[in-house]
Amino acid sequence: MDERLQQQLDFALEIDKEKNIFRQTHLSGHGRNENDAEHAWHMAIMAYIFREYSNEEIDISKVILMCLIHDIVEIDAGDTYAYDEDRLKTQQAREDAAKERIFSLLPEDQKNELIALFDEFEAYETAESKFAHAMDNLQPLMLNNSNGGSDWKEHGVTAAQVYGRQGKTVSGSEKLFEVIDGIIKDNISKGSIKS
Amino acid sequence: MDERLQQQLDFALEIDKEKNIFRQTHLSGHGRNENDAEHAWHMAIMAYIFREYSNEEIDISKVILMCLIHDIVEIDAGDTYAYDEDRLKTQQAREDAAKERIFSLLPEDQKNELIALFDEFEAYETAESKFAHAMDNLQPLMLNNSNGGSDWKEHGVTAAQVYGRQGKTVSGSEKLFEVIDGIIKDNISKGSIKS
Repeated sequence: MDERLQQQLDFALEIDKEKNIFRQTHLSGHGRNENDAEHAWHMAIMAYIFREYSNEEIDISKVILMCLIHDIVEIDAGDTYAYDEDRLKTQQAREDAAKERIFSLLPEDQKNELIALFDEFEAYETAESKFAHAMDNLQPLMLNNSNGGSDWKEHGVTAAQVYGRQGKTVSGSEKLFEVIDGIIKDNISKGSIKS
Repeated sequence: MDERLQQQLDFALEIDKEKNIFRQTHLSGHGRNENDAEHAWHMAIMAYIFREYSNEEIDISKVILMCLIHDIVEIDAGDTYAYDEDRLKTQQAREDAAKERIFSLLPEDQKNELIALFDEFEAYETAESKFAHAMDNLQPLMLNNSNGGSDWKEHGVTAAQVYGRQGKTVSGSEKLFEVIDGIIKDNISKGSIKS
């Protein structure tokens, strides 16, 4: 087999490991913890369904790809819970090393392409990145809300923490931020989020 | 909240259930059974990585969307193992009912759009459908091969059955069918697939 195809097959098999990276979020119906691959799949479809609510015009195909690959680095770096201050400090270094190792399995052109896409997502500057981040924020909030906010309760999360993370969603979608804001307020009033 | 947005949110939450539909395929590293959402995520990225091997020119964004949504009907219809002759007989009726119920959660325009995409996938006629099916076939074969063909062994699958399913992959990608053919022959010679 030619080297290029072998590299692509090696990468395709390697990313299977993302299904073993579990998050703090639980599936709806008070289910088990969700993993990164499921989260990425869900975000990608939500991006497509909700694309009309992006503040700016977006290349939806690019957003979908961003959603699909944005957590591949966690195969090595692990999941960093949005409200885990200690692990957030080392997140960048862990993810940089992971990015280099995992995408280097690919042929050079595809490595560069996917790293550029990942970096664009992380930089949070383009319209596509902002909308992909809006999905990254809305998706777990939606699941958590469907379970009565049990993930927030379990971790004793405060309104300031949730708004700190979710507040940036407004830069991707004002309309979806209204939904998020309503959900947060509702969970504060029910005591699931500490005010 | 306006009705359209509420419908979209209801659909987004409903499809979370796809993460509970487990397949016969096991994750690499002799892992647990894979679920439909993980499978769809994996296929979508593989379609992007392997797009240069499509026999025909394809709209890769359309292929990716097909991959992402092609198993949503299994939320109601359940997974039908490729070599389960009895369940294959009732698959169409089960999936038609599921398609109508689940996509009807969406606003009419998006319902029609996603049903058209699903139907195009199922019809196996367009270049995009053929390439998406090639991913649907290659992805579990790759995982199974990485585990020494244990899924084939467990179900006593024969070469005729595997070729029956995988043989159509050649219509999406001759190059990737060469890979598949090599893997099948290797697993026949090792006794994982009955000759």
